[in-house]
Amino acid sequence: MTTHINKLAIFGVGLIGGSVALALKQAAAVGEVVGVGRSRANLDAALKLGIIDRIATTAAAAVQGADVVLLAVPVGQMAALMLEIAPHLGAETVITDAGSTKQDVAALMQQHLAAHLPNCVPGHPIAGAETCGAAAARAGLYQGRNVVLTPLPQSNKAALEKVRALWQACGAKVSEMPATQHDAIFATVSHLPHLLAYTLVDMIARRDNADTLFSFAASGFRDFTRIAGSSPEMWRDIALANRQALLNEIEQYQASLEQMRIALTAEDAAALEATFKRAQTARVRWSEE
Amino acid sequence: MTTHINKLAIFGVGLIGGSVALALKQAAAVGEVVGVGRSRANLDAALKLGIIDRIATTAAAAVQGADVVLLAVPVGQMAALMLEIAPHLGAETVITDAGSTKQDVAALMQQHLAAHLPNCVPGHPIAGAETCGAAAARAGLYQGRNVVLTPLPQSNKAALEKVRALWQACGAKVSEMPATQHDAIFATVSHLPHLLAYTLVDMIARRDNADTLFSFAASGFRDFTRIAGSSPEMWRDIALANRQALLNEIEQYQASLEQMRIALTAEDAAALEATFKRAQTARVRWSEE
Repeated sequence: MTTHINKLAIFGVGLIGGSVALALKQAAAVGEVVGVGRSRANLDAALKLGIIDRIATTAAAAVQGADVVLLAVPVGQMAALMLEIAPHLGAETVITDAGSTKQDVAALMQQHLAAHLPNCVPGHPIAGAETCGAAAARAGLYQGRNVVLTPLPQSNKAALEKVRALWQACGAKVSEMPATQHDAIFATVSHLPHLLAYTLVDMIARRDNADTLFSFAASGFRDFTRIAGSSPEMWRDIALANRQALLNEIEQYQASLEQMRIALTAEDAAALEATFKRAQTARVRWSEE
Repeated sequence: MTTHINKLAIFGVGLIGGSVALALKQAAAVGEVVGVGRSRANLDAALKLGIIDRIATTAAAAVQGADVVLLAVPVGQMAALMLEIAPHLGAETVITDAGSTKQDVAALMQQHLAAHLPNCVPGHPIAGAETCGAAAARAGLYQGRNVVLTPLPQSNKAALEKVRALWQACGAKVSEMPATQHDAIFATVSHLPHLLAYTLVDMIARRDNADTLFSFAASGFRDFTRIAGSSPEMWRDIALANRQALLNEIEQYQASLEQMRIALTAEDAAALEATFKRAQTARVRWSEE
């Protein structure tokens, strides 16, 4: 499917929002891209890099006549932003976002964009990175990556297809599922690993001999803990936004870890090897896919 | 310090042992390298690649006249190997190893190399990798890497200096500590992360929707779980060999994780952010060192 967006308004022209703009431009799938953000320096950089065509200084000017509005800001800023844009949205303007959690964004839309729900389609591009800012944006970021859309009960088909086409034009594999399922999946494969990595690094950092410990940490530790270098504020918000699902995952992980502790206490070589072997097989199969 | 080894006997010519040979040859620090191993195909490859100069088919022939014997085999094979070489060791032959745990190797030496303890110096090069076999060996593997030596109470100074010089000739940073301290440090920064990664991947692999979960896992998950692709047999042995220290780490991690669960249950944003922030700061500082 080809799509064309005459005017795209991006709130938050960082890695995520900026890369959407670059990808759509490369695909000749967008006319004008207007950027809005809290950092003027970042917007100036985005303009200079050709990511956006114009800076809008008010929400009204940004959404005026826009086919699509992309909210690519931290979830913590989403409510205020929705309140700001709501009065200015056109009848046909489609609203989507790029947040890492979806039940909370859906609830905010229900609350703050009540008159526009048929045009709202929450989404989550799976392409995080520790880098941020417009300078990190690149056209290929979404190539072959997953984007999950979690339509509201009220979302209409035209809006859903518009957002799907936008991401497909960026090269992404688009799937669709209920927000609850999305949040459960990402609690398992993303939010839990982040929390586990943060917990390990903090445990070590608080020790008296932390410097010695870190000085002997090697490449396995480096990879395992890379995600503990992620933004604390962002991950605090994600953890809280997806609290129930994440608590469920933590509890299941605690049960699994306790089984390992019991096996090791009992010197149960077979149980340890069986677990390690199942994990290794699954990990190798996954990495080869 | 310059060193010269006239004859080096390597038991286990894989990534670890093979890379020692290549590094010493590149540094012109070794005369003849003799290789012994269970796989003839691997030894033939090592010979062809110039890693070893000769294949020995008996332990006696291998250690005959050797200045240094390097035991680079899995810890599980160490006892049998020590029994095999013990009758053939010369009075001046220095014996070292490359195992990931050190109290167990020290105990095996005390038991099986009792007549040679002054010449025994256990060691651990911190340069693991998931690849293995002679073909994976490379001269630069130890460049700038840590090697920890854990001398026995009986180890003499000449043997210690010989082993230290060997690793320095490979480009490694050599340090020295008691085996108990070594095992505690690596329980924290290596063995625990491996166990945590295996536990997560296994937990996911056992679920009914494992395929769906893995299909949405992205780069953060890939890095976090890379070490779960390591050899199950090797890590079973490491976990058992370092059982007490690893159990201690698991218990401390369980306590830390429980604190995170409590903070999240209580929606304690400040506690979550404080932990994430301490971890991020420590992780970023470490990665910049």
